[in-house]
Amino acid sequence: MTSREASEKEAGAPPPLGIGMIGYSFMGAAHSQGWRTAGHVFDLPMRPHLAAICGRDETAVRTAADKLGWAAAETDWRELIARDDVQLVDICTPGDSHAEIAIAALEAGKHVLCEKPLANSVAEAEAMVRAAEAARSRGQLAMVGFNYRRVPAISYARKLIEEGRLGALRHVRVTYLQDWLVDAEFPLTWRLKREHAGSGALGDLGAHIVDLAQFLAGEPLVGVSAMTETFVRERPLLSGTSAGLSATGGAQTGPVTVDDAALFTGRLASGALASFEATRMAAGRKNALRLEINGEHGSLAFDLERLNELSFHDQSEPAVTAGFRRILVTESEHPYLDAWWPPGHGLGYEHTFVHQAKDLVEAIAAGTDPAPSFADGLQVQRVLAAVEESAEKNAIYTPVPAPSGIES
Amino acid sequence: MTSREASEKEAGAPPPLGIGMIGYSFMGAAHSQGWRTAGHVFDLPMRPHLAAICGRDETAVRTAADKLGWAAAETDWRELIARDDVQLVDICTPGDSHAEIAIAALEAGKHVLCEKPLANSVAEAEAMVRAAEAARSRGQLAMVGFNYRRVPAISYARKLIEEGRLGALRHVRVTYLQDWLVDAEFPLTWRLKREHAGSGALGDLGAHIVDLAQFLAGEPLVGVSAMTETFVRERPLLSGTSAGLSATGGAQTGPVTVDDAALFTGRLASGALASFEATRMAAGRKNALRLEINGEHGSLAFDLERLNELSFHDQSEPAVTAGFRRILVTESEHPYLDAWWPPGHGLGYEHTFVHQAKDLVEAIAAGTDPAPSFADGLQVQRVLAAVEESAEKNAIYTPVPAPSGIES
Amino acid sequence: MTSREASEKEAGAPPPLGIGMIGYSFMGAAHSQGWRTAGHVFDLPMRPHLAAICGRDETAVRTAADKLGWAAAETDWRELIARDDVQLVDICTPGDSHAEIAIAALEAGKHVLCEKPLANSVAEAEAMVRAAEAARSRGQLAMVGFNYRRVPAISYARKLIEEGRLGALRHVRVTYLQDWLVDAEFPLTWRLKREHAGSGALGDLGAHIVDLAQFLAGEPLVGVSAMTETFVRERPLLSGTSAGLSATGGAQTGPVTVDDAALFTGRLASGALASFEATRMAAGRKNALRLEINGEHGSLAFDLERLNELSFHDQSEPAVTAGFRRILVTESEHPYLDAWWPPGHGLGYEHTFVHQAKDLVEAIAAGTDPAPSFADGLQVQRVLAAVEESAEKNAIYTPVPAPSGIES
Amino acid sequence: MTSREASEKEAGAPPPLGIGMIGYSFMGAAHSQGWRTAGHVFDLPMRPHLAAICGRDETAVRTAADKLGWAAAETDWRELIARDDVQLVDICTPGDSHAEIAIAALEAGKHVLCEKPLANSVAEAEAMVRAAEAARSRGQLAMVGFNYRRVPAISYARKLIEEGRLGALRHVRVTYLQDWLVDAEFPLTWRLKREHAGSGALGDLGAHIVDLAQFLAGEPLVGVSAMTETFVRERPLLSGTSAGLSATGGAQTGPVTVDDAALFTGRLASGALASFEATRMAAGRKNALRLEINGEHGSLAFDLERLNELSFHDQSEPAVTAGFRRILVTESEHPYLDAWWPPGHGLGYEHTFVHQAKDLVEAIAAGTDPAPSFADGLQVQRVLAAVEESAEKNAIYTPVPAPSGIES
Repeated sequence: MTSREASEKEAGAPPPLGIGMIGYSFMGAAHSQGWRTAGHVFDLPMRPHLAAICGRDETAVRTAADKLGWAAAETDWRELIARDDVQLVDICTPGDSHAEIAIAALEAGKHVLCEKPLANSVAEAEAMVRAAEAARSRGQLAMVGFNYRRVPAISYARKLIEEGRLGALRHVRVTYLQDWLVDAEFPLTWRLKREHAGSGALGDLGAHIVDLAQFLAGEPLVGVSAMTETFVRERPLLSGTSAGLSATGGAQTGPVTVDDAALFTGRLASGALASFEATRMAAGRKNALRLEINGEHGSLAFDLERLNELSFHDQSEPAVTAGFRRILVTESEHPYLDAWWPPGHGLGYEHTFVHQAKDLVEAIAAGTDPAPSFADGLQVQRVLAAVEESAEKNAIYTPVPAPSGIES
Repeated sequence: MTSREASEKEAGAPPPLGIGMIGYSFMGAAHSQGWRTAGHVFDLPMRPHLAAICGRDETAVRTAADKLGWAAAETDWRELIARDDVQLVDICTPGDSHAEIAIAALEAGKHVLCEKPLANSVAEAEAMVRAAEAARSRGQLAMVGFNYRRVPAISYARKLIEEGRLGALRHVRVTYLQDWLVDAEFPLTWRLKREHAGSGALGDLGAHIVDLAQFLAGEPLVGVSAMTETFVRERPLLSGTSAGLSATGGAQTGPVTVDDAALFTGRLASGALASFEATRMAAGRKNALRLEINGEHGSLAFDLERLNELSFHDQSEPAVTAGFRRILVTESEHPYLDAWWPPGHGLGYEHTFVHQAKDLVEAIAAGTDPAPSFADGLQVQRVLAAVEESAEKNAIYTPVPAPSGIES
Repeated sequence: MTSREASEKEAGAPPPLGIGMIGYSFMGAAHSQGWRTAGHVFDLPMRPHLAAICGRDETAVRTAADKLGWAAAETDWRELIARDDVQLVDICTPGDSHAEIAIAALEAGKHVLCEKPLANSVAEAEAMVRAAEAARSRGQLAMVGFNYRRVPAISYARKLIEEGRLGALRHVRVTYLQDWLVDAEFPLTWRLKREHAGSGALGDLGAHIVDLAQFLAGEPLVGVSAMTETFVRERPLLSGTSAGLSATGGAQTGPVTVDDAALFTGRLASGALASFEATRMAAGRKNALRLEINGEHGSLAFDLERLNELSFHDQSEPAVTAGFRRILVTESEHPYLDAWWPPGHGLGYEHTFVHQAKDLVEAIAAGTDPAPSFADGLQVQRVLAAVEESAEKNAIYTPVPAPSGIES
Repeated sequence: MTSREASEKEAGAPPPLGIGMIGYSFMGAAHSQGWRTAGHVFDLPMRPHLAAICGRDETAVRTAADKLGWAAAETDWRELIARDDVQLVDICTPGDSHAEIAIAALEAGKHVLCEKPLANSVAEAEAMVRAAEAARSRGQLAMVGFNYRRVPAISYARKLIEEGRLGALRHVRVTYLQDWLVDAEFPLTWRLKREHAGSGALGDLGAHIVDLAQFLAGEPLVGVSAMTETFVRERPLLSGTSAGLSATGGAQTGPVTVDDAALFTGRLASGALASFEATRMAAGRKNALRLEINGEHGSLAFDLERLNELSFHDQSEPAVTAGFRRILVTESEHPYLDAWWPPGHGLGYEHTFVHQAKDLVEAIAAGTDPAPSFADGLQVQRVLAAVEESAEKNAIYTPVPAPSGIES
């Protein structure tokens, strides 16, 4: 009997929560790190057990299982869902398969964590919300993976806004700038095809910033005006494998069927103005999710490339000593930080997945609703749909249907 | 005979250029500093002579003349224009008087420097361009005061773009954020009344960033989509005097008839996307004219609050050593810098007016066309008009009439 | 048979490497994260097995074992060393016990990883080096835990210097500023007592920056001149528990017997000047390990509070476009990064321990000498001793004995 | 009668103060800008009149007089001092002539402004202080040109420290990094010769940071430990002219007889530790006068390359919202700023000379003692002498004689 087994028996150790994950590339690796780590850092009410991982290529998925620490491997997602040792299905596949898998998993009595964007269309997302609501009555939970809500600086920004430190909001401006498509020779991966990705920078990056804007403001967008553009319309067909966001291409080309960039403005329910830019064509910007929020009592600014920092300006300070403060969000009183390192010892990107795992496990154990919900994911989808509609109609201001309520 | 007079006689010293300036508040003080200083720093072909200043209040204008270094004071701008010792009329009044004064000065045979925005309407601006063209044939020059083109970092950014260091442009994003209207008690100055100011943040701040975007890109905006907002719609009536951008208010209130903020997107002639935000409601941002331009070969970024710096990313560098460089634009090879101080000894805001004076004096002496021209000012006016039209029409994409050509 | 076991049998899976760790507070938690994670991110030739953890308090160590993922718990470090399933002993205790444990472990035939500083005195460190040399001949390896060498930006900085991108070095300046002792009420923990900690900021923070200066420059310090100071000489005695760097104190006080700050200058073997400051009294600085190195061909700058960034100035660039570049050290070509996330998705503090685990496992599998060696740790100890000697002798320049050679 | 003459008669206009300046290169140009501008920006009790400038080369000094705006030119400084229209002698020559000229000017009944460093030796500085004291009794004032005290951010930092916002000081660290000597081909100008410059980086840059450290702390250094170094010991002899800090060299070489870099530590009277580094060999650093001061209640940081900003950390803030604030020192309540531009419209390097002129004119009109006094300059000289002595004696801690009192 190992020490762990012994102490579990003695101490009434936390019961296991079996995880089954579908997909094992970039997001799969990041989620694995979250599941593996959460219980060793936080005191969780249930112990995540990495039960099984699923992918279509048997050799590859088996290698991934070993590398990433999963106990078993499956090649058919329906088999994964059916496993007795899986209580939670974690969906890390491209967006076109989210609806089918999530609905099946919910119907099979499993909790579901689904990567963002929730789906590739509003209709799919609506079906997923209905399935989640039905499952909720049976005690199953569903959550969408907008992981950036769990950057401590972002969580703390939301807290400051909730406490009224900014007062009535005037401006929300968010950009998400990357540059991996600047090179016209970068090949046609699935992320550049409408049938798999739904959209381009809009769904991939824009979904994040729409969710963050609404999450931080605590209110939905009510309308948008948009332009989108595809600067490089033909790219080499993919040859060989792709990993993360990198890939190599061959001699033949094919059409890019998604946007390279999306630029949109909007109004929040309170009347605040919002501006958004999502692009993969900003040379030198690697992961520049930058946001600034201005209110009548203060302002906040954040840059994902410096994710341990939050800038805060308090308008009530005397003008002579006022200024944006660089808060290192690494104090033990900051969200999630009491479980990590001393002040100034920063966290990284993957910690958002550890926090996501922790929060979801706690919600499951407590039977409370995790956020962001599928309804939150649907609301983002409706904004993205309005953006696409506006972009097709000469940027005309396009209302976003009211959500049942942004749950946060 | 003073040393100067003696040496002028001997050396064939530069002839004087008589300046007559109308207006003596913030812009008047800044222009005065430019005219007083340019000849002592640069070797100019003509020597600016601060001949006369004009304002309606006799005591105030006389005090200003003494303080700011003008030889004489006038209370009627027509008298100022008529003076024999005035060859150049410098217009620093609110926008509603620009057209009348500029046209009269040109018709009186004077060169004209007119503060931005060129006018309060496209019609006025067109009349001014016609007057400038007529005067040009008589050898008189006209220039509009978009002084930020003459921040060395901006001048140098234009040079890098002209040289092709960025390649085809993809994105231009510019914000101009101030916060002096965050306080709802700030009173109704002329800048908040449509009849004097034409518009609010749009004409005051937006005009600058539209000009800079077109100047830097070297191409015009062809269409825009816009939202504007007035967050504080009633403000205390002005009591007492205002200075610079500060003022005090009384107990009665009146309506704000201009925008507090303008948010717009657009397309440049080449197809690049552009985004703009002008606001006076961004708590903590004092003069945050921030711009970033992304091209296929590189990117540039600038912040007016750190005006001696230019950030440059060169996409042709190996990825391992690539990154935005912080160029201190204080080397003697940088624009205007050979006349100033050693590297690292930075310049300030007012130096833009010294450079403006230098460039205009040189253009007058050489008989060449100064930039930005009245036609450039008209082009900005047309963009602002399209912004207002789009904002009234649900943000619909609104074309900007083609310019005769952006002169830079 | 689990998937892992099956595939291990089939594929000739990597053999396990049993780890035994002594100490389970801040450093213990960080090392655990390193051992748990390394094999799931990097393709390692041996699989770290968290065999056993050791601490004096049986309940506490058992709880730590469960939380941190160790298979067994011990309360006597001699028992831990004796375990058959432990091949590598990882020492995370205060410095006063390093020598005894490390020498015993080496004599027992185990590999050793020892936290920094290597020891509390030169004599202890020398004995450890002798033990390591004797063990080396039996195939055992020893390494000291200067983890900051494995921040990717630091590793890459070393590479740039090795490649000659800076040319002959002129200046190395390093500060390590923290502020957890600013509050005079912070209690007397073991870190403030000479008998346990050896010294204060000097051994804790100064050891890191002396190692980094020598590692990056690739040459040893040959002499130093120093001042030290204890600003708060009495502190409350510890009451209750301490965690990480935080603790609470009672009403009685006792003397602080270590330095609060150490300030020293030095010369490197090449003649370059170096300056150092280590303090826990710099209000607002949480973990400000800042370094800058100037050479005849360029400069590098780094700040641990922004650990994903490296600033690089290349003196061979034309002056007009030269400037410090902000390199995001997150490209797949950067050290350690090919195993992590896409560009711009930054790492955190604890990743240094993952990299340390990876490098040590690879060295053990290959039978090569890991760096930093115990000899490197001794060399740091000699510098610290010279610093203390100089500080006692009116800052007189004090030579540092020549090392057998800095291995890097 | 001009407007100015008329209004002067009417209004009892301020009387003139005749300035005579010796030297017309970099410092001469900067001081001229100060004298020309101060009265047009600030309401001064006396009107600076640029009476005469002095240099040895008749043609060059006459050209400089015209360019810089001086009414007359002299080639013998004794003639300049003797002029009736000169009440204040401004000494902008190399340090070896400061004592002789200043003493002669004071003995001739003139006020004196002397560029820093006050002299090339303690003995000279002492003689100057004695002359200044004798002159003081006759109503003449003497001031040394440590212009950086008059950067608004520095003035305001002193105010915050005086108000106790930092509490007892713990650390003062200041570097002044430039790079114009990195190139070994830069020629032997007067600044590299001991007989003219007294010392190298130490007197040129070190004098500034010693003065700032003592000014900001409000207390003197009581002892220092130092190292100096000359990395490039032979340089090309000067050929042709030099301007500012740039120059060109010929084929022959000569010895550099001053330091390239000086590195020293010290103790302030209160027991705070201080560290200093002055170098002209820091590739990529153009004018990096960087300082940070840590006290028990807070910290301040400043960088001359961003001179409109001051960073302030208030230790009394709750840890969750604490952080260094970036204060834009451009509010009308900040020192000197009410006379300049609206918030966010920054100043430059030369404004320090405008402020210096203003403060000295006001002191002369009021008959109060200006700061920094010659005694302050002497105190800096004593520190520099102790630095040189320590550097010659193996960095031994070397006491600085107590000043009669640092006047600020």
